[in-house]
Amino acid sequence: MIKAAILGATGYTGMELVRLLYAHTETEIVFLSSESYAGQKLSAVHAQFYGQIEQSLQHMNVDRIPDDTDIIFCALPHGQSAMVVPDLLERDFRVIDLSADFRLKNEALYPQWYKRKHPCSEKLQDAVYGLPEIYNSDIQKAKLLANPGCFPTGVLLALAPLLKEKVVEKDGLVIDAKTGVSGAGRSPKQVSHFPECSDNFKAYRVATHQHTPEIEQELGRFSGSKLQVTFVPHLVPMVRGILSTIYAYPAGDWNENDLTAMYKNFYGNSYFIRYFERPELPETRFVRGSNFCDLACRFDNRTGRLIILAAIDNLVKGASGQAVQNMNIMFGLPETTGLDQAPF
Amino acid sequence: MIKAAILGATGYTGMELVRLLYAHTETEIVFLSSESYAGQKLSAVHAQFYGQIEQSLQHMNVDRIPDDTDIIFCALPHGQSAMVVPDLLERDFRVIDLSADFRLKNEALYPQWYKRKHPCSEKLQDAVYGLPEIYNSDIQKAKLLANPGCFPTGVLLALAPLLKEKVVEKDGLVIDAKTGVSGAGRSPKQVSHFPECSDNFKAYRVATHQHTPEIEQELGRFSGSKLQVTFVPHLVPMVRGILSTIYAYPAGDWNENDLTAMYKNFYGNSYFIRYFERPELPETRFVRGSNFCDLACRFDNRTGRLIILAAIDNLVKGASGQAVQNMNIMFGLPETTGLDQAPF
Amino acid sequence: MIKAAILGATGYTGMELVRLLYAHTETEIVFLSSESYAGQKLSAVHAQFYGQIEQSLQHMNVDRIPDDTDIIFCALPHGQSAMVVPDLLERDFRVIDLSADFRLKNEALYPQWYKRKHPCSEKLQDAVYGLPEIYNSDIQKAKLLANPGCFPTGVLLALAPLLKEKVVEKDGLVIDAKTGVSGAGRSPKQVSHFPECSDNFKAYRVATHQHTPEIEQELGRFSGSKLQVTFVPHLVPMVRGILSTIYAYPAGDWNENDLTAMYKNFYGNSYFIRYFERPELPETRFVRGSNFCDLACRFDNRTGRLIILAAIDNLVKGASGQAVQNMNIMFGLPETTGLDQAPF
Amino acid sequence: MIKAAILGATGYTGMELVRLLYAHTETEIVFLSSESYAGQKLSAVHAQFYGQIEQSLQHMNVDRIPDDTDIIFCALPHGQSAMVVPDLLERDFRVIDLSADFRLKNEALYPQWYKRKHPCSEKLQDAVYGLPEIYNSDIQKAKLLANPGCFPTGVLLALAPLLKEKVVEKDGLVIDAKTGVSGAGRSPKQVSHFPECSDNFKAYRVATHQHTPEIEQELGRFSGSKLQVTFVPHLVPMVRGILSTIYAYPAGDWNENDLTAMYKNFYGNSYFIRYFERPELPETRFVRGSNFCDLACRFDNRTGRLIILAAIDNLVKGASGQAVQNMNIMFGLPETTGLDQAPF
Repeated sequence: MIKAAILGATGYTGMELVRLLYAHTETEIVFLSSESYAGQKLSAVHAQFYGQIEQSLQHMNVDRIPDDTDIIFCALPHGQSAMVVPDLLERDFRVIDLSADFRLKNEALYPQWYKRKHPCSEKLQDAVYGLPEIYNSDIQKAKLLANPGCFPTGVLLALAPLLKEKVVEKDGLVIDAKTGVSGAGRSPKQVSHFPECSDNFKAYRVATHQHTPEIEQELGRFSGSKLQVTFVPHLVPMVRGILSTIYAYPAGDWNENDLTAMYKNFYGNSYFIRYFERPELPETRFVRGSNFCDLACRFDNRTGRLIILAAIDNLVKGASGQAVQNMNIMFGLPETTGLDQAPF
Repeated sequence: MIKAAILGATGYTGMELVRLLYAHTETEIVFLSSESYAGQKLSAVHAQFYGQIEQSLQHMNVDRIPDDTDIIFCALPHGQSAMVVPDLLERDFRVIDLSADFRLKNEALYPQWYKRKHPCSEKLQDAVYGLPEIYNSDIQKAKLLANPGCFPTGVLLALAPLLKEKVVEKDGLVIDAKTGVSGAGRSPKQVSHFPECSDNFKAYRVATHQHTPEIEQELGRFSGSKLQVTFVPHLVPMVRGILSTIYAYPAGDWNENDLTAMYKNFYGNSYFIRYFERPELPETRFVRGSNFCDLACRFDNRTGRLIILAAIDNLVKGASGQAVQNMNIMFGLPETTGLDQAPF
Repeated sequence: MIKAAILGATGYTGMELVRLLYAHTETEIVFLSSESYAGQKLSAVHAQFYGQIEQSLQHMNVDRIPDDTDIIFCALPHGQSAMVVPDLLERDFRVIDLSADFRLKNEALYPQWYKRKHPCSEKLQDAVYGLPEIYNSDIQKAKLLANPGCFPTGVLLALAPLLKEKVVEKDGLVIDAKTGVSGAGRSPKQVSHFPECSDNFKAYRVATHQHTPEIEQELGRFSGSKLQVTFVPHLVPMVRGILSTIYAYPAGDWNENDLTAMYKNFYGNSYFIRYFERPELPETRFVRGSNFCDLACRFDNRTGRLIILAAIDNLVKGASGQAVQNMNIMFGLPETTGLDQAPF
Repeated sequence: MIKAAILGATGYTGMELVRLLYAHTETEIVFLSSESYAGQKLSAVHAQFYGQIEQSLQHMNVDRIPDDTDIIFCALPHGQSAMVVPDLLERDFRVIDLSADFRLKNEALYPQWYKRKHPCSEKLQDAVYGLPEIYNSDIQKAKLLANPGCFPTGVLLALAPLLKEKVVEKDGLVIDAKTGVSGAGRSPKQVSHFPECSDNFKAYRVATHQHTPEIEQELGRFSGSKLQVTFVPHLVPMVRGILSTIYAYPAGDWNENDLTAMYKNFYGNSYFIRYFERPELPETRFVRGSNFCDLACRFDNRTGRLIILAAIDNLVKGASGQAVQNMNIMFGLPETTGLDQAPF
C-alpha cells in the first residue's frame, strides 16, 4: 500500500483527492491537513464522507507527517505550496504539487503573472511537469511533480499532436476556454455567489489569465520554438468541467480523416484520451467525475480554419485525477488504478 | 462472475445500472436491450461510456437473452415490465424489476393509481418488495424482486424505526417530498424543458401521486395496521436527489437523544443508512452518486411535532443502486460490493 | 413626484427597489446610501443600471438626506435599521423598513429569535405591519411601516381567509417553505456558494427560523387567539421565488369550490392575489419579477387534509415590490402604480 | 394606439412580445394566434399572464386578422413564416417577421444553410433587415421587416464600427458565441432536457450554423466587400442570454482609448448600446430582460489580437425587444417606448 498524505484536504482539489483515493485499491491515506478545520474530522466538515472516512484533520506541520509516507499531495493555495515544498523535499518525501508554484521554468514569469516573487525558485528546474500522456518517463522518476493547471491540461492534450506533427501553424492560436465554477475554489466570493453566477455567462481576465505562460511554455516545447497564444477564459454556470475551443491555421493540406488517424496513433496507448469522430462532439457531461480528456477536430471548410475541442472535468483530469494518475506512474502502477469509474 | 442483463439500458435507470455495474467487480454485463437504439453501441447513444463499454444494444427479445444469465434488471417503463416479466420467469431467470409493476400487493390499486388494469396480477403475491434494510431475508430468496420507488425508499427508511417502535402516531403523517428532474425520466417533456424547470419550483400531483399507495402499503406493514398519509411531491431544479420532510406526532415522551439511539440501534448493521445528529442535517449533495440514505430527526420543541428528514440519490438508492444492493443480497455477496464509492 | 431615498441601495432588496422605482412614473429617487460603495456610482457597482441610473452612492448619514424627501426605504440589515429609524422619524420622514426590526409587537421575542435585545423597542407599537391586502387602512396613515418578511408574506396571504372565516383549525398547521438563494442576501457565504448550493436541496433552521414568531403573531390576529405553527424552510437552487406548502385540518365540511368562492370574495379587489383553480397550480416562475402572490387550495380527499400553496417572488412581493405597494397606498396612488409588469 | 397582432403567440418569442407589449403604452394587442392552443386563453397556456392578459388564442387564419391591425409580428417557425407573409402583405399589413425567412438576400443560401428551397423568394429583396442602430431610415419605411437572428444581433453591433471604420481586417474573424437554452425554442428536445443540459457545456453545429451567412451578409455590407467568418456556437446552462467573443486582427495602430472613443461616437444616439470601459466587462445578467446590447473591446497586448465582447438577452434584443424597437421606428415613436425597463 502506498501511504499518502494530503495537505489542504478540505478545499475542492483536496476533497477530490480524498474521493479518488477512497476508490484506489493500492493507497492508504495517512495524513490529512487543514488549517481552518484542524482537530475536526474530515466528515464533520464534508458530511458526504460520513461513514467512509473517519480520519481527523491536522495542522499543516511538516514534522508531523509520518516518516513512512510515500507520497505527499500538496493541495495548498498558490504561494503557500512553495513555502512548504522545500521542507518536504528535505525530508525526502516525493511530492505532487497541485498548485501553480512549480509549473513555470522561467522564474521571471511569476512576478509578471502571479504578482509575487517566487519564494523557492531554486527548485523550479527540478520539478517535472506532470502531463502523463506526454512526459511519462520523466514522471516515473520525479521527486517533485508539478501537476498541470486545469486550463492547460485540456489545451495541451488537444494541441500536442498538432504541434509536434506540424499540422498547424504555431502562430495565431486562439484559445476560448469555458470553465465551471468549482475552478474558483471553495472560498465564497462574489463571483461564485449563486444569485450572481447562476443564469449568467461572462469572460474574465481577458488575455491576462495566469495560465497563459504555462500553456505557452509547454506548447513551445511541443513546437520546438517559442510561441504566443490568445487565451480568454469564461465562467459557465455549472459546477464542474472545462470545454476549450481552439482555433488554428492548418500548416498544409489535411482533412478530418487524417487528423483522426493522427490523434489515434499519437494517443494509442493513452486510456484517458478519447477522440470523438463525427458526428459526436465532446461535452463536459461526458467526462464528469472522470479522468478522461475528450478531443475532437473539425475543419471549417469555408475558411480553412481548424477548430479543436477539448473537454475535461477540471477537478479530475484538470487537478486531482491527474495527480493520482501521476502517482500511479511514479509508483509503477497501471495509470488507470483507482481512476476507471464511468463518468457520472 | 454474475452474468447480468439490463432491459431498457438507455433510460436513466438503465444507464445508472451500467455505470454501477462497471464498478462492480463480481458482475459481467451480457445483454443490453433498447428498442429505440437497437443495433447501435451503447457508447454511441451515451458518449460518456465511450472507451469503457463497447457492447451493442439489442432488441428486447426474451429469447435472445443468453441462457446462463444470472440476473435480469428490468428497467423498462411502467406497464411494459409486467408484460415481459412472466416470460422471464418462465425461462427461470431471477428478475429485479425497477418499474412499479410488482410493488403493490393489492391488485385493485393499479387501476386506481396507475390508470390501467394490471396485465399480470397473478405474480403480485410472489414478488418480494426489495427494501434491503428491512426485508433482507426475503430478498435472499427472491425470484422476482420489486425494486422500491424513489419517493418510497427514503420515506420508508425514515419511518420504519418510528412506526415499528411505536414512537409516532400512525395517523396524521404528512410527507412533503422534493425531487430532482431526472426522476421524470429521459424523454423530453415540457415539465423537464430547461427554460421552464430551471429557476423554478413547483408542487405536482398534489395528494394524488402514484407512489402514495406504495408508501401506505409498507408503512402499514411497519405499524401493523392500515394507515393513510398525505403525500405532496415537488420538483427541484437539480438533476439528482430527493429530500423528504416528514411531519409526525410523537406517541409518547421522546427526545432527540432517544431517537438517535433508536435509529443507530435499528440500522446498526446497515452500511447505507447514515443518521445525522445535531447540528448536521441531510442535504441531497451529500448522497449524490452514492447509495446512502441520510436521515435525521428534529423535534419542534414548541409544537411537539417531530420532523424527519431523508435524503437519497433518486437514481442510486432510489433506483439502480438499490437494485444492485438487492442483487448482492440475492447472490450472497456483501451488500456494499460495487457500491462503496464516495459521494460526488 | 414622490421623492424617495433608499438606505442600503446595493444589497438585493435595495437593488430591487431601484429597479422597481425606475419603472414607477410617480417617483423620483433623491438619495441612495451604501456604506461599502459610498462615493461610487450605483451603476459602477451594479452594471445592469449603466445608462439608466447615474446617481452616486452616499454614506448613510441621516443629516444628509434632503429635507423634502417624502419616503425613506430602509433596506439595511436587521439590527442596523432599528438604530437609524428613530433619527429618521425624528426628522419627520415617513419610513418603510424592509428589515425585521419593527415587525414583532412583543419585544421579548427579539432576544429569543434574533439573539439580541431590541435597540429601539419604544417604537414597536407605532409600527404598522405592512401587508397591504389585509391592513390597507392602517397603511394609509403609517409613519413607520414594517414591511413583512419574505416567508410570512405568502403564508399569511394564503391563510388569512381560512383563519378569518374559520375554515381551518388553528392548531396543527404545518408550513413547509422553499426559497430561492437570493433570500440569503448579497454577501457571499458558504451556503450560497455556487458549487455547494447548485444541484442541491436542503432544509435549514428546522423549526427555529426567525420568521416563525412573525407568522404566529399575524395568524393569531387572523384567528382571534394565539396559535403556534411548525415552520420548516428549505433552500432551492434557484435565484428567486418562494413556494410554501401548508397543511391544515379543515374545521367543517368544505369543498374546493367553496374555497375558490371564498378566496375570490375575500381578495376580490386585490390585484396582486391570483387564485388558481384546478388544474393550474402556482409555480414560482409564474410570479418571477412580479408583485403577484399566487394561491391554490387542494383537498386530500383520502385523509381530509387541506393543502394550500402560495408562490411569490421573494424580492418583489416578499420585499421590495410590497414596499412599493405600501408606498403607493401611503401616498394615495393606485396600488399597482409601477408594479404591473408581466412576470418574467 | 397601434393595433398589433402576434402570430405564434405561445412560443418563446411570442410570449416575450406579449410581455413587452403589455408594458408598451402606445400599443394594443388585437389578435393572438396559436395552432396548438387555439380556443384557449393565453393565460391558460402561460399562467404568468393570468389576471393581466385575458385574450384568447385563435387559429392562424390570415382572413380573421382585423382590417385595422397596424402591425403584425410573425413569430412562427422558420419556413412557416414565408408561407404566410405573402398573404399578409397582400392585405397591406406591415409585417415584422421574427423568423429567418427574409433575412438573406441571396436566395441560393436557403437550400445550403436551411435545407429547403425558399417558398417565397420574390419578397427577399423587399425585406428590410431590421438592425435599428444601423438601418434606421430603411426601417422607418419598411413594409416587410426581417428581424435579425439572435447570434447575428450582438455580433453585428460589435463589429459594425470596426469594419466600417476599417479598424480591423475583414479576414480571419473568429466568432465564439455562447447562448442560453431558450434559444432552442419552447418545444421539448433532448438537447434542452434539464438533466442533460444542466451542468453541461458543449459546442454545436461547429462552423455550420445557419446564422453564419446572415452574419457574413451584413458584415460584408459594413466592410464593403465579401468576407467569411468562422462561427462556433455553444450552449450554456442558463435560460437567457448570449455572449459572443470575437477575435480580430487590427488593421493599424489602435489602442483601447481610441476604440472607446470610436464606439461612443458611432453609437452616440443609440440608447440600447452600452460600451463598457475597463475594468467592466459585459455579462449576460447585466442585460437580462432588457433590450441592451453591451459591448467591450480589449487588446491582447502580447499577440496584438483584438477581442470584442457582446452581450444581449437573446429573447429581447436578440428577438422580441428588437422587434418592438423596430415597430417603434416604423411608427415614428421614440425607439425606447415600452423598452426601458431596468435589467432584471
